[in-house]
Amino acid sequence: MTQVDHNRMANAIRGLSMDAVEKAKSGHPGLPMGAADIATVLFTQFLKFDIAATEWPDRDRFVLSAGHGSMLLYSLLHLLGSPEMTIDQLKNFRQLGSLTPGHPEHGHTKGIETTTGPLGQGISTAVGMALAEKMLAAEFGKKIVDHHTYVLASDGDLMEGISQEAIAMAGHWKLNKLIVLYDDNGISIDGPTSIADSVDQVKRFKACGWAAEKIDGHDQAAIAAAITRAQKSSKPTLIACRTTIGFGAPHKQGTSKVHGEALGADELKAAKENLGISLEPFSVPDDVLKAWRAAGSRGASARQEWETRLGELGSRKRAEFERRLRHERPAALAKAFKSYKKELLEKPMNAATRKSSEAVIEVIAGAMPMEFLAGSADLTGSNNNKAKSATAFSAKTPKGRFIHYGIREHGMCAAMNGIFLHGGFAPNGATFLVFTDYARPAMRLAALMGTGVVYVMTHDSIGLGEDGPTHQPVEHLSALRAIPNMRVFRPCDAMEVAECWELALNRTDGPTVLALTRQNLPQLRTTATNDNPCAAGAYELVAAQGEAKATLFASGSEVEMAVAAQKQLAERGVPTRVVSVPSLELLLAQPKERRDAIIGNAPVKVAIEAAVRWGWDAVIGQDGEFVGMHSFGASAPLNKVFQHFGITAEAAVNAVLKRVS
Amino acid sequence: MTQVDHNRMANAIRGLSMDAVEKAKSGHPGLPMGAADIATVLFTQFLKFDIAATEWPDRDRFVLSAGHGSMLLYSLLHLLGSPEMTIDQLKNFRQLGSLTPGHPEHGHTKGIETTTGPLGQGISTAVGMALAEKMLAAEFGKKIVDHHTYVLASDGDLMEGISQEAIAMAGHWKLNKLIVLYDDNGISIDGPTSIADSVDQVKRFKACGWAAEKIDGHDQAAIAAAITRAQKSSKPTLIACRTTIGFGAPHKQGTSKVHGEALGADELKAAKENLGISLEPFSVPDDVLKAWRAAGSRGASARQEWETRLGELGSRKRAEFERRLRHERPAALAKAFKSYKKELLEKPMNAATRKSSEAVIEVIAGAMPMEFLAGSADLTGSNNNKAKSATAFSAKTPKGRFIHYGIREHGMCAAMNGIFLHGGFAPNGATFLVFTDYARPAMRLAALMGTGVVYVMTHDSIGLGEDGPTHQPVEHLSALRAIPNMRVFRPCDAMEVAECWELALNRTDGPTVLALTRQNLPQLRTTATNDNPCAAGAYELVAAQGEAKATLFASGSEVEMAVAAQKQLAERGVPTRVVSVPSLELLLAQPKERRDAIIGNAPVKVAIEAAVRWGWDAVIGQDGEFVGMHSFGASAPLNKVFQHFGITAEAAVNAVLKRVS
Repeated sequence: MTQVDHNRMANAIRGLSMDAVEKAKSGHPGLPMGAADIATVLFTQFLKFDIAATEWPDRDRFVLSAGHGSMLLYSLLHLLGSPEMTIDQLKNFRQLGSLTPGHPEHGHTKGIETTTGPLGQGISTAVGMALAEKMLAAEFGKKIVDHHTYVLASDGDLMEGISQEAIAMAGHWKLNKLIVLYDDNGISIDGPTSIADSVDQVKRFKACGWAAEKIDGHDQAAIAAAITRAQKSSKPTLIACRTTIGFGAPHKQGTSKVHGEALGADELKAAKENLGISLEPFSVPDDVLKAWRAAGSRGASARQEWETRLGELGSRKRAEFERRLRHERPAALAKAFKSYKKELLEKPMNAATRKSSEAVIEVIAGAMPMEFLAGSADLTGSNNNKAKSATAFSAKTPKGRFIHYGIREHGMCAAMNGIFLHGGFAPNGATFLVFTDYARPAMRLAALMGTGVVYVMTHDSIGLGEDGPTHQPVEHLSALRAIPNMRVFRPCDAMEVAECWELALNRTDGPTVLALTRQNLPQLRTTATNDNPCAAGAYELVAAQGEAKATLFASGSEVEMAVAAQKQLAERGVPTRVVSVPSLELLLAQPKERRDAIIGNAPVKVAIEAAVRWGWDAVIGQDGEFVGMHSFGASAPLNKVFQHFGITAEAAVNAVLKRVS
Repeated sequence: MTQVDHNRMANAIRGLSMDAVEKAKSGHPGLPMGAADIATVLFTQFLKFDIAATEWPDRDRFVLSAGHGSMLLYSLLHLLGSPEMTIDQLKNFRQLGSLTPGHPEHGHTKGIETTTGPLGQGISTAVGMALAEKMLAAEFGKKIVDHHTYVLASDGDLMEGISQEAIAMAGHWKLNKLIVLYDDNGISIDGPTSIADSVDQVKRFKACGWAAEKIDGHDQAAIAAAITRAQKSSKPTLIACRTTIGFGAPHKQGTSKVHGEALGADELKAAKENLGISLEPFSVPDDVLKAWRAAGSRGASARQEWETRLGELGSRKRAEFERRLRHERPAALAKAFKSYKKELLEKPMNAATRKSSEAVIEVIAGAMPMEFLAGSADLTGSNNNKAKSATAFSAKTPKGRFIHYGIREHGMCAAMNGIFLHGGFAPNGATFLVFTDYARPAMRLAALMGTGVVYVMTHDSIGLGEDGPTHQPVEHLSALRAIPNMRVFRPCDAMEVAECWELALNRTDGPTVLALTRQNLPQLRTTATNDNPCAAGAYELVAAQGEAKATLFASGSEVEMAVAAQKQLAERGVPTRVVSVPSLELLLAQPKERRDAIIGNAPVKVAIEAAVRWGWDAVIGQDGEFVGMHSFGASAPLNKVFQHFGITAEAAVNAVLKRVS
């Protein structure tokens, strides 16, 4: 411990947090004030980091799962000496363009490990970080990768179901370097948590394979002792820290009044007097600031020693390590794709796109076996995203590169965010497309933060057949396309599958959904292209013989129907084009000229997709014909289902014929 | 117990289930075979029901949370004597139009209490049913309402996060009449559950306030004894029944091979020989069938006695009970709305729509205080959906009509499904619109089953301001509108709020989202209408002065901007209409003539909505102008945010001016 008193250091967090919320007239003072003691002990005594190098790969991660307490993080970053986190930034808390938005945003502010706010996400993302650490340590050795992941979590985090998925995974994987500090203040927005909850969290975590204990979250010695014990545990650890929300505010502390609004001038003054800190807004005593700054560079020598060890790794291994952390793909990957595409031309593959995806995965895993990290939410044999060479990851087999996430889609997607953010891996996870609904909050965060994860979503339409409407996605393609920065690909054949996979892997600033079929499809692309036509979202797959009277737009399994319909129409003397649309929103995002050229100006436009029309009007217009779904699906063998809902080549032909003059 | 041996009765379930899956060449034999003993004990000794009256309000509920084991339910319905569940229906398992779809569908097949298949939903919906039972019993007395809710749940159900939310709620509410039979077979699709899970479920449930024990799930006496104990418990009970998946199939039982595919002819034969049942497909020995049929009418006399008690309730109370269960609204409701709308004309209300919604809620609660059942996922003071007269529900205050769901959006929405399905209440639940992402699987089931629940989703755009992009919905309106049978209303003022609430409450065959603002809005509708113009999804709010050159379409908070823009355009000599669009998808669902009339044929069409464009092209066309969001939001005071993203009346004016010739 430094010579400056712990309490004065903790109170600096409290003071800055109170002041910033007060100035913004918006924000959450309760958590920073209540958790200031925990944070002070952690950051001054335990957390391995160097504020001058927030991207140091072997730093300990700190995740503020209770993202509403963002002023805790911003106060810490300022106190520790983050160059960009000036006092002016704190004064601009929650203002446009500041580095101090309402909730911490990764990529926006240095030192923010992940975007939090939606409860349950931080702790679940942290599980992915701790998993990545374990895997990377096993591969590169403890000299290079050996750090903890700390989480500060709230009641709300633990009430959200996703956290229970993540906790179960962490316990099963024995992620002993994951330490969760639970800010157990007994207060949520509606009042005491006892109005809605009576879970014994310590017991619940223990039931999930964690070490867990309760301490006084304002007792610095107790906090330090508990963290020390946690570091030695063979299990992940929960430290339930009993705290007083808004600690120090004499009239409001320990109540929901201090959770989510400014204290108000009177209470602010009273709190500062009570804590014995200056009434001057945003002031920190010099000696306290100095002590904090010392803490900020506490890890500098450890980092330098680490740099030395990295240098001793050997240039090839070091280059590999650094490339991996940069999310740069190995040169072998592009080559592998090129030769695979050539192979497909020579020997076309007629198969379900989930199966042709499996073939592509073999190609990818061949080129980047240790970084390509697949997993499935208990549908491995259906999702087909396990490379033959990949063995199952477990606590005992940390070099395994296939993760059995269990039936935990949401936990899987949050973990993938953490794996990507940690660095070193290109994670992909799989389930049925319909179950993206279970994972949307984590998928949205992926889009918001820009994590380059891949979702392998099979059984992508009513084409899954007998499982029926509960399992048949209908609105999901549209609902995913609506998310900013989310890329949705629905390839139509083996060639497009390869191309979409390549685009997905090379996209490291945002997530990609690959929607794949259960049912067999022919390979439609059998002529060579030098480029990747999927990169524009859509392209003309079949040209019209003569001036086109109609264009058929289709994605995935319905492209086959479009091609069949085109042939029938040609025979009837109606020149028709087929445009394959692996990514509708990517097509719409093209420069107008390019987009218009792809869409073309044939007078009749028909879209075919075994999903809702929502979004397609942007291509076919209000008066365009749509062959697709207008309701939920039905349980039956797939051909019967397509017939029943009128999604057939014949329907497409008729849609054109009734409009062709 | 009947004179027919338990084993022979259980084997009848096994035989039918094996045969049906075999014939369909699709389905899940493992669960029905493994859980046949549990089901036989439950249905022949405990479950209170009468197969001749599957809608008997005081029946015990049975929820097959592991919906993939649907053949268990279909076999039971046939054996128990459901008139519609003929042997031919079993032979048509998973075929188009049969009563035996892949997963059980409520509303499609009699005796199916809720649609299941997406894991975790059944158990969470059952929590809502048990809650409704407790509340209704407190109101109408144990003579009328006194039944259990039984659930058969799988490993997958308990891995899904939603189940942990529901379990925590059930424990907190002491729903002692909820009994979960956990089919603890240790197998999931990918193999033994031990590859992905090591949770001690008994301990985990106990930590959540449940009674819990482990038994042998093939020991009929143990099952019966455990259920008897559970019925006496003051807590909800978990009975972890250790079973062998695919019990009886000699080579495949106890493995994932028997989970989700037909046994195959050889194993089917071997299993039947092993179990000592006829090789003849779909055959049930007469005495076994007779014993099952006797079990099916076991509750007939109890039901008749109940009918007598209902008769003794007094005609007024009885009528009220029956009306409530029919989801029919009281006559007072329409009247109350009418007079409230009149009041609004006399005294317009300028307020955030979440606040004008609060005023409407007072009106509704006045008309139907005991059936209007609101709740919030810990945002009560922000969502404003608590009537002043409503007190908090708790185990000790079962007549409370406001539910503090805790920070459990998904659990809340699933519970609402259960509350509605149970009958007696008009449930609504609240959170921020952005967090619909957490609840989508339950919201989708609401749309699929057609439960008339209401989602009060406040803070419906970037207008929430400082909380920033993690809390600002952008794609959510579109993603919700894409769900079949989901109604999304985004009212623009106090009058539309009242009208949309009325439409929502009168919609008892599907769910409704009310998207409401955080920020203040003026009342724009100040002239009387006899009808409810929101019922068509959209209507002309402001007519053009002269022949319209442009139409401005807007929803919610952006209608105010549209009205301001219209005024400015009129001043500049550009006659412009304003169409308020409280429900875009409802507008699009109108008959073409009506839709076209509302959309009109002004040459310039502009839509204004602080959300993504996705879906709006259907109204404004590909070339229409859109004033809205093209990315995620930003943290700042709301006016700054609207300015930053260019969503203003001025932007709408400019969009028109650049297009007007």
